Amino acid sequence: MRLDPFFKARRIAVIGASRERGKVGSVILKQLKNKKAYPVNPHAKRILGLKAYASVKEIPHKIDLAIIATRAQTVPKILQECQEKNITHAIIVSAGFKEIGNELLQKELSEAIRKTNITVLGPNCLGVFDAHNRLDTLFLPEDRLKRPKPGGISFLSQSGALGSAVLDLAAYKGYGFAKFISYGNAENVTASDILEFLAKDKDTKVICAYIEGIKDGKAFLKSAKKCKKPIIALKGGITKAGSSAAQSHTGALAGKKEIYYGAFKQAGIIIAHNLEEVFIFASIFSTIKTKPRGKRVQIITNGGGYGIVTADAIENRGLALAKPGSAIKSLKKEMPEGVVAKNPFDLLGDATNERYDKAIKAAMKDKNNDAIVVVILPQTPRIDLSIKKTIIRASRKKEKPIVAVITGSEYSMSLRRALEKEKIPCFEYPEKAILALSAYLRS
Amino acid sequence: MRLDPFFKARRIAVIGASRERGKVGSVILKQLKNKKAYPVNPHAKRILGLKAYASVKEIPHKIDLAIIATRAQTVPKILQECQEKNITHAIIVSAGFKEIGNELLQKELSEAIRKTNITVLGPNCLGVFDAHNRLDTLFLPEDRLKRPKPGGISFLSQSGALGSAVLDLAAYKGYGFAKFISYGNAENVTASDILEFLAKDKDTKVICAYIEGIKDGKAFLKSAKKCKKPIIALKGGITKAGSSAAQSHTGALAGKKEIYYGAFKQAGIIIAHNLEEVFIFASIFSTIKTKPRGKRVQIITNGGGYGIVTADAIENRGLALAKPGSAIKSLKKEMPEGVVAKNPFDLLGDATNERYDKAIKAAMKDKNNDAIVVVILPQTPRIDLSIKKTIIRASRKKEKPIVAVITGSEYSMSLRRALEKEKIPCFEYPEKAILALSAYLRS
Repeated sequence: MRLDPFFKARRIAVIGASRERGKVGSVILKQLKNKKAYPVNPHAKRILGLKAYASVKEIPHKIDLAIIATRAQTVPKILQECQEKNITHAIIVSAGFKEIGNELLQKELSEAIRKTNITVLGPNCLGVFDAHNRLDTLFLPEDRLKRPKPGGISFLSQSGALGSAVLDLAAYKGYGFAKFISYGNAENVTASDILEFLAKDKDTKVICAYIEGIKDGKAFLKSAKKCKKPIIALKGGITKAGSSAAQSHTGALAGKKEIYYGAFKQAGIIIAHNLEEVFIFASIFSTIKTKPRGKRVQIITNGGGYGIVTADAIENRGLALAKPGSAIKSLKKEMPEGVVAKNPFDLLGDATNERYDKAIKAAMKDKNNDAIVVVILPQTPRIDLSIKKTIIRASRKKEKPIVAVITGSEYSMSLRRALEKEKIPCFEYPEKAILALSAYLRS
Repeated sequence: MRLDPFFKARRIAVIGASRERGKVGSVILKQLKNKKAYPVNPHAKRILGLKAYASVKEIPHKIDLAIIATRAQTVPKILQECQEKNITHAIIVSAGFKEIGNELLQKELSEAIRKTNITVLGPNCLGVFDAHNRLDTLFLPEDRLKRPKPGGISFLSQSGALGSAVLDLAAYKGYGFAKFISYGNAENVTASDILEFLAKDKDTKVICAYIEGIKDGKAFLKSAKKCKKPIIALKGGITKAGSSAAQSHTGALAGKKEIYYGAFKQAGIIIAHNLEEVFIFASIFSTIKTKPRGKRVQIITNGGGYGIVTADAIENRGLALAKPGSAIKSLKKEMPEGVVAKNPFDLLGDATNERYDKAIKAAMKDKNNDAIVVVILPQTPRIDLSIKKTIIRASRKKEKPIVAVITGSEYSMSLRRALEKEKIPCFEYPEKAILALSAYLRS
């Protein structure tokens, strides 16, 4: 199944394009204006300055992709017209099928897809967003839903609204995206088809998925097993309460927790327990440069309390507090009184960039740890933003993974952004850093 | 023990005031310049434009509070001078006592406190920050550490660095603070003294504490039991790994998890498992207007997937998904096709403000629920910011608690800020809202 036309289409027909500002068919057309878009609407001559066509068949060019945003009842017939126009790919945005109990219409649609042999995404979906080439079929305007910057995270979501909120949040938090695919009722293109496609996609480094029920469960797990990229999945409807809700949402029958999680683990899928975990895991998997050889973590900090809660998190998440070896211990004579070369390695509130530099270099050399968590409270007066150089230098050596914890407001955020730009995993709270590291180690 | 002079002092001596920009004794003096501050330094004539004194005894005014930021060795003698000047309260910022193993000096200090009868906060602490009257003894400049806006949260922290990072984060996230107290080694004023003081403080609505080891454990628990305000505590060093780290930090012996948590529960203290939980719990306890009568939660949403993960969180956190009663069920005829008056009550992606208004009003009337979680994805085109009116109106009735989940970037944040201004608990992720609600219900 070829899915690249969904992302590489040059000429796109928007069937159900609308002149009414804010309407689905209007927003989609607006987003596609930088591409070659052809509005289809029998009641309009021009839409957003473009010539409108009464039917897709009247467009005098080859069309690579049709986006259908008309009333649900009209969709099967429109698919027929698309076939007559030799269109091979369509995104059906329209809702009103099995997700609201209209099984009959869903069946009719299924029949139309089979007959026309068109590759269909949806129905009841948002379609796609490609952060690299900016192909964007989302009917939510940018003043409402910010689009994330280009990066390595791809996200597939059964739920359109959840997916769109995720995109908006990702933009807000600065995560870089490759492709976003909202596949809705998955009548034709399924989660496993998308998974296989993303496994080969050069922009995609990490695959995230929100799943309610998997129709093609076995195929999905098979695709996941084959996939060499990390897959992070959040399963909605994992409880009894959530499962009955899921049933009336996408019409998908959600299964038991144990069955899902067991199958996910077997297929090497990383289980996120909530939306935030999806981001946390995606963040570390898309940035970390070096796989740690073991689970012994060395903490370096300028805040005693932060060192302690980091140590607590390490034990709680099943990692181990490294026992400092000779490289760290021998630093004692180079450090001022009160700095104890232990773990956590507490550089104290008057820590300087230089003190951090020495400690990080020693920890990199030390044979008794596998990963280094550098906790920086940039509030203290004797360090400044040039501390980033030390961390970037150490990280580039790719000998051991370095994860940073940076807590605070504007000043701290500027340090965080500088490190994130260099793809160094950064977290706001120690617990999140350790959660991420432990997920990475278990994968 | 009177602690109000720490917050209400009018004339303050800064012993160890410095002319060197960025130095502890310089920043403290600068922060206090809007108060009547008297620098003490035998090697300077003027500091930051103020006349400097060689000794505290030479200041020709009554001094309400001394802040001591000199070398640790000099502190006992300085306390003696403070007594001769009839100073009753002192904050010892200086470090270098038992926290670095200098038990002898700590003992000497203890002796000096006993002899002089001065009420002492510290040593090895940051002192205090009062967001309402802006008394601020923190030696971290505002371009590094933003101060939070005035509000109802007070925070006591054994660890200065952790406490300061918490302040900076609180400022960043928009939480309102009453008083912040960093008490360090607690040689004289202890955590339980501070707790008793905050229990009576009119600005304090919620008390948060970061604790490593409690010296006066029994007194602390007794004070907590008496306190009518919610107390949220994060215990650092709760694991074996963290506990050994805590020992070398504030010299406090951390105890076993079961013992601490058991005692906390008995004393009615809300246990936070990490820093973020402190904020989440403080947020709901300082805003919620109505205590729910039970644990049955009704979800209203415009995102099916968000409804499902909210339902999952409800079951995972031991709350119950309410069974909609007649008030909600009777809405069916007023809603468009596809909207099912169930729980989650999914108003669909084309939900309007009006649809939310009807649903919230019905849920408020419905006898089958105790609390309402309103999930809003403001990305969808047919709702806008005036939806806040509906939520504020319902919340003001104080019949049932309303908790909002608002996910997204700028546009969403403007809605969130509008609701937070009205003290409606708002969260970014469904799981956080449910975690907060469940903590509130258990309290």
